[in-house]
Amino acid sequence: MRLSRLLGERYREQPSEALLISHAFMLRGGYIRQVTNGIYSLLPPAKRIVAKIEDIIRQEMDAIDGQEVLFPVVMSSELWEESGRYSAISSELVRFKDRGGRNMVLGMTHEEAAVHLARTEAKSHTKYPFMIYQIQTKFRDEARPRGGLIRVREFTMKDAYSFHTSQECLEQYYDEAYKSYERIFKRAGLKDAFAVKSDNGMMGGSVSHEFMSECEQGEDSVVSCPVCGYKSNMEVAESILEKFTGGVKFDSLEKVSTPDCKTIEDVAQFFDAPVQQMMKAVVLKAENSDKLVIVFLRGDYEVNETKVRNVVQANVEIATGEGTVAEHPCYGFIGPVGINKDNFTIIYDRSLEGLESVVCGANEKDFHYKVPSIAEYMGDAEFVDVSKARAGDTCAKCGDGKLEIKRAIEIGNIFQLGTKYSEKMGMRYTDVDGELKTPIMGCYGIGVGRLMASVLEALHDDRGPIWPMSIAPWQIHLCTIRPNDENVKAKAEELYSSLTNKGFEVIYDDRNESPGVKFADADLLGVPVRVVVSPKNLDQGCFEVSTRDKEINDMVPVDNIEEYVRKLIDDKLSQLI
Amino acid sequence: MRLSRLLGERYREQPSEALLISHAFMLRGGYIRQVTNGIYSLLPPAKRIVAKIEDIIRQEMDAIDGQEVLFPVVMSSELWEESGRYSAISSELVRFKDRGGRNMVLGMTHEEAAVHLARTEAKSHTKYPFMIYQIQTKFRDEARPRGGLIRVREFTMKDAYSFHTSQECLEQYYDEAYKSYERIFKRAGLKDAFAVKSDNGMMGGSVSHEFMSECEQGEDSVVSCPVCGYKSNMEVAESILEKFTGGVKFDSLEKVSTPDCKTIEDVAQFFDAPVQQMMKAVVLKAENSDKLVIVFLRGDYEVNETKVRNVVQANVEIATGEGTVAEHPCYGFIGPVGINKDNFTIIYDRSLEGLESVVCGANEKDFHYKVPSIAEYMGDAEFVDVSKARAGDTCAKCGDGKLEIKRAIEIGNIFQLGTKYSEKMGMRYTDVDGELKTPIMGCYGIGVGRLMASVLEALHDDRGPIWPMSIAPWQIHLCTIRPNDENVKAKAEELYSSLTNKGFEVIYDDRNESPGVKFADADLLGVPVRVVVSPKNLDQGCFEVSTRDKEINDMVPVDNIEEYVRKLIDDKLSQLI
Repeated sequence: MRLSRLLGERYREQPSEALLISHAFMLRGGYIRQVTNGIYSLLPPAKRIVAKIEDIIRQEMDAIDGQEVLFPVVMSSELWEESGRYSAISSELVRFKDRGGRNMVLGMTHEEAAVHLARTEAKSHTKYPFMIYQIQTKFRDEARPRGGLIRVREFTMKDAYSFHTSQECLEQYYDEAYKSYERIFKRAGLKDAFAVKSDNGMMGGSVSHEFMSECEQGEDSVVSCPVCGYKSNMEVAESILEKFTGGVKFDSLEKVSTPDCKTIEDVAQFFDAPVQQMMKAVVLKAENSDKLVIVFLRGDYEVNETKVRNVVQANVEIATGEGTVAEHPCYGFIGPVGINKDNFTIIYDRSLEGLESVVCGANEKDFHYKVPSIAEYMGDAEFVDVSKARAGDTCAKCGDGKLEIKRAIEIGNIFQLGTKYSEKMGMRYTDVDGELKTPIMGCYGIGVGRLMASVLEALHDDRGPIWPMSIAPWQIHLCTIRPNDENVKAKAEELYSSLTNKGFEVIYDDRNESPGVKFADADLLGVPVRVVVSPKNLDQGCFEVSTRDKEINDMVPVDNIEEYVRKLIDDKLSQLI
Repeated sequence: MRLSRLLGERYREQPSEALLISHAFMLRGGYIRQVTNGIYSLLPPAKRIVAKIEDIIRQEMDAIDGQEVLFPVVMSSELWEESGRYSAISSELVRFKDRGGRNMVLGMTHEEAAVHLARTEAKSHTKYPFMIYQIQTKFRDEARPRGGLIRVREFTMKDAYSFHTSQECLEQYYDEAYKSYERIFKRAGLKDAFAVKSDNGMMGGSVSHEFMSECEQGEDSVVSCPVCGYKSNMEVAESILEKFTGGVKFDSLEKVSTPDCKTIEDVAQFFDAPVQQMMKAVVLKAENSDKLVIVFLRGDYEVNETKVRNVVQANVEIATGEGTVAEHPCYGFIGPVGINKDNFTIIYDRSLEGLESVVCGANEKDFHYKVPSIAEYMGDAEFVDVSKARAGDTCAKCGDGKLEIKRAIEIGNIFQLGTKYSEKMGMRYTDVDGELKTPIMGCYGIGVGRLMASVLEALHDDRGPIWPMSIAPWQIHLCTIRPNDENVKAKAEELYSSLTNKGFEVIYDDRNESPGVKFADADLLGVPVRVVVSPKNLDQGCFEVSTRDKEINDMVPVDNIEEYVRKLIDDKLSQLI
């Protein structure tokens, strides 16, 4: 490909809309253009990268006996009613009526389609286990698309579904898929990708893992223990709670005016008591109920919405903004003393366990209670874990290490689904003993575009991406200096056609631009090997070969160039296996 | 792949819902399953075929300097409002609101997306010409999906868009694309595919061609001249009209009661006059007007809706059914004598030109007029061509041959779009002279799934598909007879792994089934080369090799098998170039 013909302008200015590095470089390098909020077109360099990532994924899926299929993007609502997700999922699921007035949806995942396909084709135990996968467009109407390809509404996803006749078989396959994912991410250039335990969320099922790539701008928090290696998504991270003893002791219940106390810290200061003795209330709205959820927890802990969701068995979000309880004058002063427990779903976090004297809201604006012993107001409270693990907390797994928290991007996930979908959708097979049974499922996803963006987040310098050889849009960036010099032009053209004919992937900058412009563009395209043809180099009978990662910068005799770059490419590829 | 593991049941019964051969075999062979009306999932054999077709298309698009991109399936309505198609296209275009209440559409073609992408990236004449293409899911809410993958609502399409600075450049590229399409269809196995002139329809522009594959069950009628080779879609086919002279002569205008005359032939018989003297009326509903369109034409001609559409510049459909003019008592008795011409858009077909005495409807139930000279009732009628060419008509191109009509399936199309989209969507580039100009576009489509089905329509016998080597799901079908025979099993397993390791694509029927079942399944999978391992063959030191097209049936010594099948595969492939 000649760079002069390549569609996609490159530019130097930092795009104002791009907060993430990958977003900025993909705009600046002519990889992507936004069509509408959270929906992008891919230009040729991005499409080439994506195709290579898809090939890697396909090879690894085939290697674990995956059978590639294709499900539709558009499905009738009936399938989703069978699984129960038509009503369980809110506005993320796009619904529309077709010309015949039938309710349709755009696939955001394809468990329903997979069961629909498999339930007529796998009626005998002899067919099991099997895995089917597809690489295809999905649509998820995200409320807040962000970060270029990191969180979009339309995206290409590899989604795989396995079917088993026993939990043991599922677990064995799940391990294979886990290892397959490790290979995929390593081959794509993310050698430091790692898996964490995660929450199954709307997918259902029990065990699940997310694969993560560390990234300062990532949306996820990952909790890890440097001692035992425990790793978990913050959503489900567990830690050993440090019980609080000591502090101030109150003698009697007393309602106190606390004007101008905006924060927990203000209140603590007002009462001259440690923040651990402050009892905090967080109000959430649950999707399945009109009753608000109130979580009480110790002042130095934060609520973990995912853990709350798993307690109330419904999506929850913190109630804020217009028209919510946040406008109520008592908001910010909620406490368990005298509250009407019938009106709310009340949850006590385990951080409260064992506390004696506390300060809590008096359910009246600008008033707090001093409570000598909180236990009597909590009744037969069951303490549950609905708070976030904190950096420095003790690891719950080894009981030794102090937890660390990092930001990361989720690049893939695997789920043990169990029979959630197969049961509801009436999928049955005849077992060896002639009995009808329900298959056990696993599912396995990778967002292709997000993976590309995550590689860029991990592998770049301040001038552009440093694409790994395995997924680079081209292998070789051939660049002329003084292209009007006849010898330069002739040698470059000859090299271009000989390399291309031998199957090398070459982007050839044949433009009549300054070296500065050419090198800046080359940096933005991030091609691993650069070959420069210049009068100076040719005088020495050489081409100049360098790598985007700066490891190599060599003068290579003209006659050796092909052998040299072949070895270089092979070396780079072998580092990714 | 072991057949025992392959997902997808095969069966022998003719599926009642399948009228087309391709539909029936794709269901029976485990290639496709319907998810909902006109929407299918592809099972592994179909997915493998589709992937190979996509590869062929990709290679040929790259060979004519195509740059692969990816546009989104979901777009905001704004782009489609820019081009005017948001209102111009009716219910085929799926519209919905996203969670923010914005109007969105599902892409049915991507001219808008292509211009959106290209208009920011090709502002200088130096970038032209260029072509971008994608292979991606489209959705078109067809009123009447039919024939399995022949007419569906969701489909994978290769759509390409070229941009030029002159009509000459467009025409030159159009020719290249034309030849590229010929190569694609030949490589996919349709050596008899041919191009016909076609109507541009909703795409706009002037010249266009459809590529066709002959098929008895095809939806399209193709008109061809055996003398000069003229080929045209019926929609735009031209012929030399045979003027009618002679017949009966009426002396005066006379209204005649014509009870029980249901058809034109009945009326002709009633008046004892040739059908050419009957004046027929066809009533159509146009999308852009409340006025009905009435086409008058000679009794022996049929109306061509596409030609009418091009006259009234709007989609039309023949008004029939409940709540239409077809319920009016005059319907079936419409004539130009005394009709209120202000209430209708009236079109006279050129078949009427020069007629004198005719019989026409009297605008009253069961009455006709005998008209001595029709000219006075038609006023200054302009005669236009809105009737269908007929088999046996004289070719308009050479004036010699007698036209033939065949049924065919459209497998691809190419359009010279002109500036329809670029003009409306404000795409401009700076020309050599510094002036802002509007690029000229072409577009080029191939439906991938339909192409697969069309190959099956063309290449099959009564037991299943005969896939061409280039797109067959596998190259070799390895089949055991008496798989419980230790020697058979050992030799088959050994052959399977050695062929697979050497890169051959093998489907291995390792099941313990009867030869009858195995061969029936092999026929349904349509793999070009079959290798049978049986005790009898092994006694002779041979495998039995045959081809699905029955050209070859050989005993091949065990040691020669690899060389033999390699040559066979190469031969089969070379026949497709």
